Amino acid sequence: MTTARIRLFLDQPLAAGQSLALDEGQAHYLFGVMREGPGSRLLVFNGEDGEWLAEVSHAGRRGGRLLCVEPVRPQVALADLWLLFAPVKKARTDFIVEKAVELGAARIVPVLTDHTRSERFRADRARAHVREAAEQCGALTLPEVVEAAPLAQVLAGWDAARQIVWADESASGEGAGRAGLPGLAGPPAAVLIGPEGGFSPAERERLRGLPFVRAVSLGPRILRAETAAIAALALWQARYGDWG
Amino acid sequence: MTTARIRLFLDQPLAAGQSLALDEGQAHYLFGVMREGPGSRLLVFNGEDGEWLAEVSHAGRRGGRLLCVEPVRPQVALADLWLLFAPVKKARTDFIVEKAVELGAARIVPVLTDHTRSERFRADRARAHVREAAEQCGALTLPEVVEAAPLAQVLAGWDAARQIVWADESASGEGAGRAGLPGLAGPPAAVLIGPEGGFSPAERERLRGLPFVRAVSLGPRILRAETAAIAALALWQARYGDWG
Repeated sequence: MTTARIRLFLDQPLAAGQSLALDEGQAHYLFGVMREGPGSRLLVFNGEDGEWLAEVSHAGRRGGRLLCVEPVRPQVALADLWLLFAPVKKARTDFIVEKAVELGAARIVPVLTDHTRSERFRADRARAHVREAAEQCGALTLPEVVEAAPLAQVLAGWDAARQIVWADESASGEGAGRAGLPGLAGPPAAVLIGPEGGFSPAERERLRGLPFVRAVSLGPRILRAETAAIAALALWQARYGDWG
Repeated sequence: MTTARIRLFLDQPLAAGQSLALDEGQAHYLFGVMREGPGSRLLVFNGEDGEWLAEVSHAGRRGGRLLCVEPVRPQVALADLWLLFAPVKKARTDFIVEKAVELGAARIVPVLTDHTRSERFRADRARAHVREAAEQCGALTLPEVVEAAPLAQVLAGWDAARQIVWADESASGEGAGRAGLPGLAGPPAAVLIGPEGGFSPAERERLRGLPFVRAVSLGPRILRAETAAIAALALWQARYGDWG
């Protein structure tokens, strides 16, 4: 991040000459925290129109304006990979959401499982985290965050064309699942990570019986949920995604 | 972790019928926190003799004894992969150390770089974290933790037979490095992760000029240090390591 430059997500159309409004939080960050002012240049993106160079035209206490100057990077679509995970403690859920953005997941799907302890997943909070992570990691597109739903319900409404790569912790160390890379499926795909307590026997049986679910092993050690999420997303991106 | 069972690292020879001593910390954890007592069974390992089933024979306040009952898993060597990383803030350094254990790095090498903010790496603290992480993730072997040293010094004494896979953040998004998997090198190998501020221009030039260093891209987004470490270790294990 040596070339670090301020980068803001703005939910507004971006085009040359366009005037862009900053809300109070953005103005506070830009002018208060970062000490920028009129004439300062920064990068902006909205998830649809690519990345643009913008210049501060008005700096106020409760808002401000930018002028959209010129395009820097064209919009690129994310690879068609979803992350299904069981929300855990608040800080670790935030962490997993941040990593999903860094690793280019296109959709974040919180699933409530028999062993999920934290039933409260706040999608609004997760979306704020997504924006922040996208600003920091240079993502052009924000993954969609859906509301949490029971795993059984998510599986019942699943489109069988999308293969679920299930990081099966019981496959670890036992060789029950296909090992890492060969076990993956190409797009459209989803990675499924269990809760800290693992899936229940009933859930495991259900998953094993579904034609669109494939268990993969992530090695002989038991990975924590966030490690498994990062590892599985990275393997998929390196093999089928936008790391090519 | 549905089959979770207490697992202790003991720095003592393990063999059938062997009596094992517990120190005060282990006794406190086992008898105070976990409420175990005489007759309780648990798993023990020492990094050399595999994993054993053991039974509590004496439970005291300041110590205790176990009887080593029978072997559960034979010792397996770790893949020959090292992790070189720039220590960052304390909590994140602990986190990276934990992940290195989960992902089976054989040696943890902290390197001080031009942009490393935290110059204090406590190897004793890291080793305690290694033991704890190994107990939790089911590792049989503990990675070695060496003292922190300047990157230049580490590179000067490097054995050229061990390829360094450098997760080059400037290669990200620019296609400068070979993409993920094809950029990897087999064992013996090391993964090198930079500090949050990236490597300095001088360091980058040095790294680019070394025949045993290969820059790899971890995709079009900028990964934080811990994400890059997990992603690179996972890719390597899946391709060359013990995830096969």
